[in-house]
Amino acid sequence: MKYCSECGESVERGVPPGDNRERHICPACGTIHYHNPRIIAGCLPVYGDRVLLCRRAIEPRLGYWTLPAGFMENGESTEDAARRETLEEACTEVEIHSLYTLTSIMHVNQVQMIYLAKMPSPDYGPSEESLEVALFSEEEIPWDELAFETIRNVLRLYFEDRKQQKFPLRHVEIDNNRFNTARVHD
Amino acid sequence: MKYCSECGESVERGVPPGDNRERHICPACGTIHYHNPRIIAGCLPVYGDRVLLCRRAIEPRLGYWTLPAGFMENGESTEDAARRETLEEACTEVEIHSLYTLTSIMHVNQVQMIYLAKMPSPDYGPSEESLEVALFSEEEIPWDELAFETIRNVLRLYFEDRKQQKFPLRHVEIDNNRFNTARVHD
Repeated sequence: MKYCSECGESVERGVPPGDNRERHICPACGTIHYHNPRIIAGCLPVYGDRVLLCRRAIEPRLGYWTLPAGFMENGESTEDAARRETLEEACTEVEIHSLYTLTSIMHVNQVQMIYLAKMPSPDYGPSEESLEVALFSEEEIPWDELAFETIRNVLRLYFEDRKQQKFPLRHVEIDNNRFNTARVHD
Repeated sequence: MKYCSECGESVERGVPPGDNRERHICPACGTIHYHNPRIIAGCLPVYGDRVLLCRRAIEPRLGYWTLPAGFMENGESTEDAARRETLEEACTEVEIHSLYTLTSIMHVNQVQMIYLAKMPSPDYGPSEESLEVALFSEEEIPWDELAFETIRNVLRLYFEDRKQQKFPLRHVEIDNNRFNTARVHD
């Protein structure tokens, strides 16, 4: 941020009164500009014993496989966002079962929420955002062609938990690609 | 947003190519400005059979009681944020037990995450943000002096769930003060 989005003047860095962090402050109109983590919401869609992955048609990681997920928009709930992204990227309507992973990706200021979701039917397809969409059994997962470490981690946890058929919420923290925790809250 | 935070020119509203929502777009430098929901993280601190509340020293709802919670900052995890807010507002260090409520507050573009947390000791106190901090049994909760409906809902759910001593994650959606759901994922 270089300019105040309210008045157009150049902003400065400083700690506002009563605060303990540096913010962008406008010396002209006094607006304090806060920057906060963004939510990425998505699904792990399951049909029978297979899971749905999308091959990315957009950067970053074009051509690599991932779960349908994207930035939550204003005016929607976290579940709305997860369903919408799944519909947009994989052209499939899912029934959300539960929040499965909550991953704080600290070095990029993102919180990723992946919901476990059921596909009522095997209807899906490519989209503007996905070159290809397909169902994979555990043995078929393209582990070396996954787009993101966070998604690899979600899939790894899922196949582990599936052995017990229990899917507790998993808290994960990642800082500079170091996975700090993957502990279960129950 | 009136001006581009990158170049200082006036922004316009429009739907970018490949998008389906109106954004603020800078006609001068081409930057598309996205606005996304912000996360409010906090705790429901428990000591014995009592819960900790803070009487707000700041607007909005100055003088009313609430749980310690506030905006998640860049560079921290959701649990970090919940612990930090509890320390800042109630001067107490808690041990987080589990994510208890996930509330999408759609009309103000916020996602509130309240963690169930244990107080190892009854050490707490007022702060710059809290006029007063105190432990309350269920009978003592100042129901008519709570700051926010979302917090009233969290407390109501907690005392209900406490009867069974089970605290599953509660998903709540609120749109214009209508509580749409309070369903349990398990």
